[in-house]
Amino acid sequence: MDYGFFNGQFISLDSASVNLEDRGYQFGDGIYEVTRVYNGKCFALDRHLARCRRSMRELRIPITYMDEELTAIHYDLIEKSGIKDGAIYFQFTRGTSKRTHAFPDQVIPNLSMTIHESTPNAEQQKNGMRCITCEDIRWLRCDIKSLNLLGNVLAKQAAHDKGVDGTIQFRKDNNLITEGSSSNFFIVKDGLIWTHPTDNYILKGVTRSILMEEIIPKLGYTVVEKAFTPEFALTADEAFATSTSLEVTPVIEIDGQKIGTGTPGPIAKALLEEYQKLVQKECY
Amino acid sequence: MDYGFFNGQFISLDSASVNLEDRGYQFGDGIYEVTRVYNGKCFALDRHLARCRRSMRELRIPITYMDEELTAIHYDLIEKSGIKDGAIYFQFTRGTSKRTHAFPDQVIPNLSMTIHESTPNAEQQKNGMRCITCEDIRWLRCDIKSLNLLGNVLAKQAAHDKGVDGTIQFRKDNNLITEGSSSNFFIVKDGLIWTHPTDNYILKGVTRSILMEEIIPKLGYTVVEKAFTPEFALTADEAFATSTSLEVTPVIEIDGQKIGTGTPGPIAKALLEEYQKLVQKECY
Repeated sequence: MDYGFFNGQFISLDSASVNLEDRGYQFGDGIYEVTRVYNGKCFALDRHLARCRRSMRELRIPITYMDEELTAIHYDLIEKSGIKDGAIYFQFTRGTSKRTHAFPDQVIPNLSMTIHESTPNAEQQKNGMRCITCEDIRWLRCDIKSLNLLGNVLAKQAAHDKGVDGTIQFRKDNNLITEGSSSNFFIVKDGLIWTHPTDNYILKGVTRSILMEEIIPKLGYTVVEKAFTPEFALTADEAFATSTSLEVTPVIEIDGQKIGTGTPGPIAKALLEEYQKLVQKECY
Repeated sequence: MDYGFFNGQFISLDSASVNLEDRGYQFGDGIYEVTRVYNGKCFALDRHLARCRRSMRELRIPITYMDEELTAIHYDLIEKSGIKDGAIYFQFTRGTSKRTHAFPDQVIPNLSMTIHESTPNAEQQKNGMRCITCEDIRWLRCDIKSLNLLGNVLAKQAAHDKGVDGTIQFRKDNNLITEGSSSNFFIVKDGLIWTHPTDNYILKGVTRSILMEEIIPKLGYTVVEKAFTPEFALTADEAFATSTSLEVTPVIEIDGQKIGTGTPGPIAKALLEEYQKLVQKECY
């Protein structure tokens, strides 16, 4: 059963636990992570916890939980919910305080968590997703996994409006692709894998890091971390998106144009296979 | 006494009323307004309600309240709280729904409100505020008064860190000033008033509109809506910031450099005086 957690209490998801003046509610002043649960185990939780700490440091939100505690709550949620395959969401906000823009003194961050049942979209991984491009209108600190997600929400909604699966965002001022609305984006061109470098324009995805550090070197592919234009992407041999939810999912069409043959490419397939082997090894 | 309101209920501000999966809490997916209460009356409430509707339309959040209802709740809050001089904050979020980026179907927006006692900072209005400049890192839809306020929060905090009163933001790509962290910004140079045009880079402030439409024409000044650089601002004869909270507050120093004589300028003073006359007329 889906379940929630707020500041030490396990709660039903339809109960009210947040104060109107939680800074998460009035400013989006907080950060979050989403971790996938396979077979009752959290995958790559250490990487998510490290990124959570980084996001909090960048926003100067006090870190009031040890990694061990957060890990324990993840497993309590899994146990209480009985969910074997799902996603755990957690967020820290700066805390509750009378509304004023600057950081309030001496507030304690609020931790909330949810668990929901879910599994990767195997059909989409097998057949690929269709995407559109849209302008990236988000703020200039996309490296922080913050709760200011309206730009991502509107991008994803634009895809829904067009009846496709996702959005690839590009910055209008330099005409360079950054990332998906909640994924990192890669193309393959002449045997080389391209993706945007990790700077303030993209989130350093956990799946991206696992690919770059563990899987791609193992398979002997080469990556250049270099931004590219939407036009260049359309000439790619293959394309794919990565995220905790998507794992590695081929992108077969952008703005109505086929990428390569218009079917999932061999490199995306190989990366997904290797990723799933890693999941097997860690969680089964 | 400070008071809150959530979806039809008047509540104490320390009670929990918001669900973890309110989209305001997880995405900042909502909009807000702040209205000043003078002498138990809301000033310029019609303008705030019109802007609220516009923000909701831009984000495609269903508008489930009539202006008459919202006005009535404002006055209920004033009555219940007994507050004569204060600020009423209200926000609409898209509603509560299992977390997914795209707009959920058939959710009803959540309305929350707070009232707090407060009065304009008369000392600052009289003596002026000192500001710093900082890069505007916000998203590219600053015309929507959304809950994605981390960029504004960080800008305000930068001012606090430097021990000054506020921040003037500029876009790095074109080196043009946009606005303050929660105010519109104006300079006076050779008798002419300059301010950023109303496009996607700034919020169309209610106080700004009142000045532009009612007060400035009445006093016979001329405004150009034209962006300018921080360097140009430093050569101004006077500068001021406007907002519902600030009303019209002179800016006497930017980045440690005096603006004009380093004291409040005559035009800012005249505009504030006229604004306060309008408040007197409407609320007393």
